[in-house]
Amino acid sequence: MSAAAAIGFLSDYGLRDEFVGVCHGVIARRCPEARVIDITHAIPRQDVRTGAITLATALPYLPTGVALAVVDPGVGGPRRALALRTAVEARLLVGPDNGLLMPAAARFGGVQEAFDVGGSRVRLQPMSSTFHGRDLFAPVAAALAAGEELSSLGDAVPAGELAQLELPAARLHDGALSAHVLRIDGFGNVSLDAGASELAQLGVERGASVTVQAPGSERRALFAASFADVPAGELVLLEDSARTLALAVNLGSAAELLGLSSFGDELVLRRA
Amino acid sequence: MSAAAAIGFLSDYGLRDEFVGVCHGVIARRCPEARVIDITHAIPRQDVRTGAITLATALPYLPTGVALAVVDPGVGGPRRALALRTAVEARLLVGPDNGLLMPAAARFGGVQEAFDVGGSRVRLQPMSSTFHGRDLFAPVAAALAAGEELSSLGDAVPAGELAQLELPAARLHDGALSAHVLRIDGFGNVSLDAGASELAQLGVERGASVTVQAPGSERRALFAASFADVPAGELVLLEDSARTLALAVNLGSAAELLGLSSFGDELVLRRA
Amino acid sequence: MSAAAAIGFLSDYGLRDEFVGVCHGVIARRCPEARVIDITHAIPRQDVRTGAITLATALPYLPTGVALAVVDPGVGGPRRALALRTAVEARLLVGPDNGLLMPAAARFGGVQEAFDVGGSRVRLQPMSSTFHGRDLFAPVAAALAAGEELSSLGDAVPAGELAQLELPAARLHDGALSAHVLRIDGFGNVSLDAGASELAQLGVERGASVTVQAPGSERRALFAASFADVPAGELVLLEDSARTLALAVNLGSAAELLGLSSFGDELVLRRA
Repeated sequence: MSAAAAIGFLSDYGLRDEFVGVCHGVIARRCPEARVIDITHAIPRQDVRTGAITLATALPYLPTGVALAVVDPGVGGPRRALALRTAVEARLLVGPDNGLLMPAAARFGGVQEAFDVGGSRVRLQPMSSTFHGRDLFAPVAAALAAGEELSSLGDAVPAGELAQLELPAARLHDGALSAHVLRIDGFGNVSLDAGASELAQLGVERGASVTVQAPGSERRALFAASFADVPAGELVLLEDSARTLALAVNLGSAAELLGLSSFGDELVLRRA
Repeated sequence: MSAAAAIGFLSDYGLRDEFVGVCHGVIARRCPEARVIDITHAIPRQDVRTGAITLATALPYLPTGVALAVVDPGVGGPRRALALRTAVEARLLVGPDNGLLMPAAARFGGVQEAFDVGGSRVRLQPMSSTFHGRDLFAPVAAALAAGEELSSLGDAVPAGELAQLELPAARLHDGALSAHVLRIDGFGNVSLDAGASELAQLGVERGASVTVQAPGSERRALFAASFADVPAGELVLLEDSARTLALAVNLGSAAELLGLSSFGDELVLRRA
Repeated sequence: MSAAAAIGFLSDYGLRDEFVGVCHGVIARRCPEARVIDITHAIPRQDVRTGAITLATALPYLPTGVALAVVDPGVGGPRRALALRTAVEARLLVGPDNGLLMPAAARFGGVQEAFDVGGSRVRLQPMSSTFHGRDLFAPVAAALAAGEELSSLGDAVPAGELAQLELPAARLHDGALSAHVLRIDGFGNVSLDAGASELAQLGVERGASVTVQAPGSERRALFAASFADVPAGELVLLEDSARTLALAVNLGSAAELLGLSSFGDELVLRRA
């Protein structure tokens, strides 16, 4: 294996069309040694928040190197194209300036340096106005993986000018924890924007029961360590593999049981 | 990385079963150094035309090397198995002789040499009659990636004897452009079998409006450069990333808006 | 390419979430030279039997090396975590001890040595109770691919103590063959738990017709070599690419025609 960096690749392109394969091709033409790791390409279309949270969740498990992320409802418009370096581990993140990269950057100490790469010399020409993954972001990621200097690929942008992502925030009030749906995975597990420490402030410890009030239903859940701590079909509240609180049903779907489907749905948790 | 060629791989196998993984395995056993780039495996089952157009669209973005394409409704029947070299860039294409490889070959100057590889010495034995991707096409692609001579893998076939693909053709008449649906991507963007030059012959330039008559509806679209040139939900006509005309809806689905679902659906465009 | 072994990877994680990408990342961090071949990640959620049969079907076509398989309804509970070596070809299989690895091991002469790796020194810490693919199985697979000794990664378990898989068994009785649905692939082809030799015992040879009695319908099928031996839309019985009997419809879906959807559905075949 050469010294080329690995490239983690996340998008909302899906695997139905050739878009992901074409980006792999563009990378392989520019930097044949780069190993590309597909994080996922099934981010819901143009859902920047889910893309951002998924990238931030996955990135710590990927090799140090480059991350290429494309969820880009503003492609062809005035939004900036970014490449940035994080303060910790010097991770290199490439994607649109719409907040998509920000939670992942925050996991690595925040943005150390950022560059507008929209006019980068490495872009494919003529550049389309609809497929910047292929024409702009993949070439920039490949150049970085091949060892080119970040500063040679664009113009510096002050970190304070980058677009931020608006996310809901969990809060404690009147002996309750109001939290929100961050993600629902393919098993129907529901991740919340709160952790075990907020729950501890309600006086809820492992083994205790909580009531979970969802928009259309109320259920009781055991706060436990694992799916297997409750019988099949029962609701459990646990710290999930991303260390956030999650609702799950042993051998079932918590999203279905609670009628949850959307990012941001509010849940109220109380000690039972 | 070794000198083995890259292999672009397209099929209608889907990712539900182990078929794609098994072909990767067969290639890795024969040529461990070959990098395999999955173009897509979600071509609609046995839809040779969509496979052919997708391959032709993607191939220019892949490294020079081998392309393995399997959409093969005639597997086990008398259809020939092919490996061919293109006139430009000497791309090597492997797949069934049902027209699937022809549009891609045309992008690279046409077929220079073609070989019937149905009885190739590198095929797996016993060869199944239902899974030639695994038993025949993957081994041939791997042998080519490893540097074996095309002529050593089969018997020459005159290029004129290869199966061609029948495609509809756009035409100008009475101040209108009759075009057809070539592809609908996962975002609902609709690619047509015409380009901006045909539109120019109608006197339509960027910034002008056109009426779009679909089988069950008529709409107006702006001819523009990008999705972002129209408000959310509005129809736009643009040159897509493959340089063909496409209908799109900013942050929506043109296929849904126009009620289009099938290859070949006819649309009539007129200056508004 | 280095001497690191290839890793075949099968799971029920799906490609919707980042789980598969994260496991690739963990492997790449521990053993950057290992080539990972995705067998499939679309095993129906927590369907250990389909996972086991798919792994056994695919493995002979993969390079000698490591197989990582995760279909793990008991994650976080008391089920063992396994790494084992097969008697033939010394294949290394890693996954939960719930029968998932057993049919694949049987294809390679059975289990030669097995180790409980649940507390392996190479696991990620802190280890989650819900995502052992990431925290345990991927690190063990990567260590094996990098050449570490199996015996250094866990505690020996006698092969006789491993969990077995219960599978239905085809049987001949009263001039009929009662067989069961093993798998339905994405084309609607239905694989049975019987082979051509059982059919021969009914006196059925290629070119003969059989009646196929499904739970809700009865049909006639030709026993032939290939889809293409019957007209479009007709039912055919053939030896599929895994050398088991399968029902197929030329350019159609046998599962749909026969109303079959589940593992284990019983079919009765008779000479027509």
